[in-house]
Amino acid sequence: MINHLCVIGVGLIGGSLSMALKKADCVKTVTGLGRGIENLQKAQQLGIIDHYETDYSKAISQADLIFISVPIGAMAEVFNKIQPHLKPRAIVTDGASAKHTVIEIAQRELGTKINQFIPGHPIAGTEKSGAAAAFDSLYQNRRVILTPLENNSVADIKAVHSMWKNTGAMVDEMGARHHDLVLAGTSHLPHVLAFSLVNCLNNVDDVEEIFKYAAGGFRDFTRIASSDPVMWRDICLNNSEAILAMMHHYQENMDCLKTAIENSDGDKLMDVFSDAKKARDDFV
Amino acid sequence: MINHLCVIGVGLIGGSLSMALKKADCVKTVTGLGRGIENLQKAQQLGIIDHYETDYSKAISQADLIFISVPIGAMAEVFNKIQPHLKPRAIVTDGASAKHTVIEIAQRELGTKINQFIPGHPIAGTEKSGAAAAFDSLYQNRRVILTPLENNSVADIKAVHSMWKNTGAMVDEMGARHHDLVLAGTSHLPHVLAFSLVNCLNNVDDVEEIFKYAAGGFRDFTRIASSDPVMWRDICLNNSEAILAMMHHYQENMDCLKTAIENSDGDKLMDVFSDAKKARDDFV
Repeated sequence: MINHLCVIGVGLIGGSLSMALKKADCVKTVTGLGRGIENLQKAQQLGIIDHYETDYSKAISQADLIFISVPIGAMAEVFNKIQPHLKPRAIVTDGASAKHTVIEIAQRELGTKINQFIPGHPIAGTEKSGAAAAFDSLYQNRRVILTPLENNSVADIKAVHSMWKNTGAMVDEMGARHHDLVLAGTSHLPHVLAFSLVNCLNNVDDVEEIFKYAAGGFRDFTRIASSDPVMWRDICLNNSEAILAMMHHYQENMDCLKTAIENSDGDKLMDVFSDAKKARDDFV
Repeated sequence: MINHLCVIGVGLIGGSLSMALKKADCVKTVTGLGRGIENLQKAQQLGIIDHYETDYSKAISQADLIFISVPIGAMAEVFNKIQPHLKPRAIVTDGASAKHTVIEIAQRELGTKINQFIPGHPIAGTEKSGAAAAFDSLYQNRRVILTPLENNSVADIKAVHSMWKNTGAMVDEMGARHHDLVLAGTSHLPHVLAFSLVNCLNNVDDVEEIFKYAAGGFRDFTRIASSDPVMWRDICLNNSEAILAMMHHYQENMDCLKTAIENSDGDKLMDVFSDAKKARDDFV
């Protein structure tokens, strides 16, 4: 049981964590902290949080567990502001989709209290954002990756494990760099591709007609292009190395397909499409 | 009312057309024609067709309306085989996703009977294939594009219009080249990108782990990579010019994003992602 949880940034990710823990009866009190007062009021109205604060000293000095779910670009300020008020046994964790730069930021801002930060990343979400988008089953059967630090205590890591398990998620651990590479492939690259596709089509002459004749495949394919631009700008800026490597790898693959189409190489196209179909069918 | 419909290739597209017309009570008899006897038997068992044939002379000489839904690579043979047996007033239409090469093939194979062919394309589908994947509501509220020829009769065009309207679809007309360009953007390019992504990830070292940590966004994004490889090989081979132009345009867009990430250009990323989100949200 978590006595007092403080969620900084009560959007889809933070709000859903609070709702899941409340539903599982694993938290006593949840305080929401954030900059958007309207969003916090909405979150309280919806019962996602018990109350909200805009003042860090009050909110953090009471908290046993602090969950940070703000865009990565805002995390330095958050770590800086919580640092002075952290209780000695309080645990800090987060939901950011890129881990090694977040760890660097935390090290810089938390200083000697860095051992209290257990980096984490729930692999879940929708293209929606804000408290109103939160729902209590978001983490059911989803994976959460923790990338613990050498100076974390076993007990603290265990506590974050158990928090996520209580939301219905499956928890794994790996190194931050490895996490960033895996996620660059499965999540960051697809988002970049989807944003890029919509943008590409949005810049052709017949844009209205293009979208008029788009079907279900297009809708699904581009769903993630409706994601929060700030969050994705920050992910791109903070996992740039792995994302660029994946984009390069992807463009090589596309060049290979282009050559096959240019040469009317049906056998090559058949190989590529069959391999992809098999891999995708196996995945599902 | 269609007296006798012959569906050549009883898969998702042809099977669903038959089911929709039967449900709307707009067809008396449906004969299925195709090479896969098991699939035809299945289609008959499921009530998708009334009976099946493997012999063209028997099936075509009775048919008032012939719907061709085979991969484009198989269409020359189909046109060639139906040509001698076509009734003078019979109408031929199709469901291929690329139109101008299909028209060229039809002109070559149908010769003087080319006026009986009204090219069409229902913009609907799922990643599944075969008769068992067909369902009667596939075309509900979906768009169908006809690209009529100059020597088609107004009455025949009207008959194909009305056939599709009876499935619940909205029917438009445009030129074949224009159709091919629009579809290259909204359908062919996304499919190529999705096949390419799955293939790209399938070739990295940690392939199992990559797929293990893929989430819902990835599943949606790559759904179309489970589509029929033969069908997509043929589309790429038969709409290569427009697809290559779109791929080129797309790669320019990706290069621009790569540069922004390389330069940590947050403003540029924010612009691109915001524009894409806005366009996509407007589309939905």
